[in-house]
Amino acid sequence: MWTKKQKKMKERRTELHVAALCNGTAIDHIPTNVVFKVVSLLELEKLDNPITIGNNLESKKMASKGIIKISGKFFEEDVINKIALIAPNVVLNIINDYEVVEKKKVVLPQTIEGIVKCNNPKCITNNEPMLTRFNVIDKDNIELRCHYCDVKIRKDDIILK
Amino acid sequence: MWTKKQKKMKERRTELHVAALCNGTAIDHIPTNVVFKVVSLLELEKLDNPITIGNNLESKKMASKGIIKISGKFFEEDVINKIALIAPNVVLNIINDYEVVEKKKVVLPQTIEGIVKCNNPKCITNNEPMLTRFNVIDKDNIELRCHYCDVKIRKDDIILK
Repeated sequence: MWTKKQKKMKERRTELHVAALCNGTAIDHIPTNVVFKVVSLLELEKLDNPITIGNNLESKKMASKGIIKISGKFFEEDVINKIALIAPNVVLNIINDYEVVEKKKVVLPQTIEGIVKCNNPKCITNNEPMLTRFNVIDKDNIELRCHYCDVKIRKDDIILK
Repeated sequence: MWTKKQKKMKERRTELHVAALCNGTAIDHIPTNVVFKVVSLLELEKLDNPITIGNNLESKKMASKGIIKISGKFFEEDVINKIALIAPNVVLNIINDYEVVEKKKVVLPQTIEGIVKCNNPKCITNNEPMLTRFNVIDKDNIELRCHYCDVKIRKDDIILK
């Protein structure tokens, strides 16, 4: 049995939704706590394309989810693979004429440049104006090693720049 | 006459929209370049409420616009008035049972604490761990004066922290 509060929450979750996309990219099933990180990773603030973002929406697969739809925009592989860093299970739907023509899984790249901060305050990347660089040493559990100072960073300790 | 490209742009603008809200706050006619600043000013990343954000959408009043709808959320006056700093013409629609029950204009407060960075690098607020504080000296053109170092900041030079 659902409590009254749960029912109300469910109603609130269902009432908002994001409209269908004619052509573009729909990123679905984004964990709610990383939706705005995905926005900044993909630099969606800078786009002129129509965009809708939903968060804390009802999901069949998850307790609640985020979704991002960008009209008329198709991303390069290396850009979308950055998402794997914070949301490894996300699927990108490529939409053409209201139909999904391709489903892309995000894949963590072998090296990650410029988007993760090194957690070692003495690392040269924290003291010089330069890009950070990490090698992915564990793709499944997401573990990185700094190319410069060798410090290891686990998934939960990743800080985006 | 519309060119083919303009027509295509218009089609792209219309195809995405943000669904109706049952109860909550709808912030409409947000200039497209400040939508994500409004998100961070209102700390929407931290909310559990269902939320939809649209940007670069077609507008009758503006070339294109942003819109933010938050289900089940009603903001305090002092919170929404922060928006006046970056989007002085925004109107908040308070929605109850799918109907607008109140329209709130944002009003620039007399003093602004903690959200604007002082542009003077020597200002104490840039050198000590403390909140910034500004007096609004011109409400119409949005001009601020730092309470600590007296530096004046005009609208276009405002940097949010």
